[in-house]
Amino acid sequence: MNAIVRWTGAVCVAALLAALPATMPAGAETALPLPGRQEVARPENAVANFLLNNGMEVVVIPDRRAPIVTHMVWYKVGSADEPPGKSGIAHFFEHLMFKGTTNHPAGEFGRRVSEIGGSENAFTTDDYTAYFQTVPPDALGTMMAYEADRMRNLVLTDAVIGPERDVILEERRLRVENSPDALLAEEVAATVYQNHPYRIPVIGWMQEIEQLNRTDATAFYDRYYAPNNAVLVVAGDVDAAEVRKLAEATYGKIARGPDLPPRIRPQEPEQNTDRTVTMRDPRVTVPSFSKSWLAPSYRSAEPGEAEALDLLSEILGGGIRSRIYQALIVKQGIASSAGAYYSGGRLDETVFGVYGSPRDVGSLDAVEHAVDAEVARIVADGVTPDELEAAKNRYLRSMIFASDNQSRMANLYGSTLAVGGTVKDVQEWPQRIRAVTPDEVRRVAVKYLSGTRSVTAYLLPAQAAAN
Amino acid sequence: MNAIVRWTGAVCVAALLAALPATMPAGAETALPLPGRQEVARPENAVANFLLNNGMEVVVIPDRRAPIVTHMVWYKVGSADEPPGKSGIAHFFEHLMFKGTTNHPAGEFGRRVSEIGGSENAFTTDDYTAYFQTVPPDALGTMMAYEADRMRNLVLTDAVIGPERDVILEERRLRVENSPDALLAEEVAATVYQNHPYRIPVIGWMQEIEQLNRTDATAFYDRYYAPNNAVLVVAGDVDAAEVRKLAEATYGKIARGPDLPPRIRPQEPEQNTDRTVTMRDPRVTVPSFSKSWLAPSYRSAEPGEAEALDLLSEILGGGIRSRIYQALIVKQGIASSAGAYYSGGRLDETVFGVYGSPRDVGSLDAVEHAVDAEVARIVADGVTPDELEAAKNRYLRSMIFASDNQSRMANLYGSTLAVGGTVKDVQEWPQRIRAVTPDEVRRVAVKYLSGTRSVTAYLLPAQAAAN
Repeated sequence: MNAIVRWTGAVCVAALLAALPATMPAGAETALPLPGRQEVARPENAVANFLLNNGMEVVVIPDRRAPIVTHMVWYKVGSADEPPGKSGIAHFFEHLMFKGTTNHPAGEFGRRVSEIGGSENAFTTDDYTAYFQTVPPDALGTMMAYEADRMRNLVLTDAVIGPERDVILEERRLRVENSPDALLAEEVAATVYQNHPYRIPVIGWMQEIEQLNRTDATAFYDRYYAPNNAVLVVAGDVDAAEVRKLAEATYGKIARGPDLPPRIRPQEPEQNTDRTVTMRDPRVTVPSFSKSWLAPSYRSAEPGEAEALDLLSEILGGGIRSRIYQALIVKQGIASSAGAYYSGGRLDETVFGVYGSPRDVGSLDAVEHAVDAEVARIVADGVTPDELEAAKNRYLRSMIFASDNQSRMANLYGSTLAVGGTVKDVQEWPQRIRAVTPDEVRRVAVKYLSGTRSVTAYLLPAQAAAN
Repeated sequence: MNAIVRWTGAVCVAALLAALPATMPAGAETALPLPGRQEVARPENAVANFLLNNGMEVVVIPDRRAPIVTHMVWYKVGSADEPPGKSGIAHFFEHLMFKGTTNHPAGEFGRRVSEIGGSENAFTTDDYTAYFQTVPPDALGTMMAYEADRMRNLVLTDAVIGPERDVILEERRLRVENSPDALLAEEVAATVYQNHPYRIPVIGWMQEIEQLNRTDATAFYDRYYAPNNAVLVVAGDVDAAEVRKLAEATYGKIARGPDLPPRIRPQEPEQNTDRTVTMRDPRVTVPSFSKSWLAPSYRSAEPGEAEALDLLSEILGGGIRSRIYQALIVKQGIASSAGAYYSGGRLDETVFGVYGSPRDVGSLDAVEHAVDAEVARIVADGVTPDELEAAKNRYLRSMIFASDNQSRMANLYGSTLAVGGTVKDVQEWPQRIRAVTPDEVRRVAVKYLSGTRSVTAYLLPAQAAAN
């Protein structure tokens, strides 16, 4: 939800990827048989996972279906790690990584990627910042050399930083200030979270971006951009020994950075109120609502709870077979869209949400009540074993389809490891989903979706002057 | 509003004082003639203001009406200066200041104050922490010696800190967790402020207080408890030369502390939504509402705006002559209480608020609409010159009455200087209030109380189970 993606390559392979960290759990499809592949069980195709001497973690995911390789570096730093008053520095820094280094002028890396027909991209979320390229396998060493170079050798002068700050301010104007949805989403996050830095937008608050400077950028770079705070993920037609050799020759030459303390951010207090956040804007034509509850993430949950929340969101509003879709769109015909979501991939306490929009202007109230009724019904009566089994099958099947995409596989490993998870977490995830019981689904519904601590957002057309 | 007062003396002279920083502006009554005094203009009775060599600021306010002296030390640190995740450390530290030093065991200072028939107290707000004693003049040197001693010589061991943390956790349970009003006020602040640390309660979030330790306390002490971060205010039957001599002999011996950067906290982004915060609780018998808008403080406002906001709050809902009181309580008879307030004394952007409670359960809606109507009327039509003149007279008269209290005078100077104001700010304040025009009052009403960026809070009795 908060992912900011920066398009730099010609081919937007990352469109799908970008949405993943927020909408999918720390997933696991590579443990499933890949469609069209026969060699799943062979050891040379197992995922490899090792550390370089300087502390950089490496994951290699063999995938020999096509002569292509995905090369990603994930830094364990996102907007939720920013110092107070410096919001936007993580995303700002992502932009600066495309500037010149002491060895290569700005733009050279990107031109090389284009020349060989590859694509590159980068994105920043609350929890991590990632850079990646998709290229033919023989270019892997070159990618590593460039990526390792910019890990430590960026030239951070005022002449570089000033103009890029203007670019980011313009990006914020276009993508946030000009969008009622985006403005509302920011204030909802700032209301849902009373203490945790997830309340702060990834792109940063306008007045703080304006003040970001070379000192901030240099401090951020020196603290977080180091091999022992990064995860290298390589997926494709390569083998682990070869990747290790290339990684040692490039990333392996970089000195360890500072030992960082555990990523312990300010946590939420107990909440005791229901809140609403209402935005009226003349650009809104169809009204909509959403309701958010705090819920644990895969990283912060009690065992099994995040899996149960994922299945709850699937059953409640995950697609056309879901209860909300069937009730509001198919049977009652009152909504143009409605559903549920759970952003389990975050490091800290996350959000479970429902939303809806009426078919006809003016019936938003009916849509909200119908969605509330579906939530209340699942809290009161739980789910049936058949319904849960069907949801597991749909859910795991969508993961299997997702796994037929090298970048998505790489992304799942990277996003899991970047928040402190392991390769094992990724691989065992399907079994954990399978093990969820109807009772566990009901229990998380009762625990997280009842009570009085929700935040309901309304996006409404502008009103006549008076209240 | 956020002031936390700690009662340690036998005589609670501070009950009145405690409320002042939040409910009154950086005030100014000592520039007005004190009732019952003839010698106002004599130079030996002028307020003195000087620095010690180590940077400690001193204010001396002669007041010879009674053989009593108020001795206060104000530290320019409050909860809004705390590091992220360490909420409550400023208030925790206030408690620790009553523990033993390398020179005096815990309790000795307080016993001395009691023995001589004096009283002592301390409080913490978002912006400052203050310690004071009221004693006979000949005890002033002793007070200074004790106060200077604990500025640098506290013994901060785990044996001291652990039990005091339990005291504070219990204080939070009693004063916040057990009080629906207090719980709601916390969540309202966390909703009004999306970025600024004023969203965090002065006492701290429970889960963060639990983690405060010796390292946090020592770091806080070493950073903020130093003469160059403190203001000494002495009011009473003393003269400035005598106070200077005593201050040099006590505080003057303490080495300067670190040079602190300007107190620049994360500021609020532009807000674009109306929000509500609703709490239902079985302990609530009479429902109530409040509506808050962000507004500048005396320290952050354009010239004249804070003065106009003070008069706006007086006219709108400052007492029995105010519009809200006259309309809702006298004429319509629908409210048991209703009014307005403006907390202008803070360092950063503050809150202008209105509130009301119905006479009969169930008519909260009518009260809210009637208060809204008074706000809308003042936004639309402004105030009359006569109404403004009467408000100025009432407002300044209440200041004159307030000035007939030594501790309140000392408090006004201290609270102004502790947020970066000057003696001149205090003394010129009545002229600035006098200069406000009807147009300026209307302008701040339009600028701050219209638009769509309010937070409305509802405190309601518990409902039957279903929504």
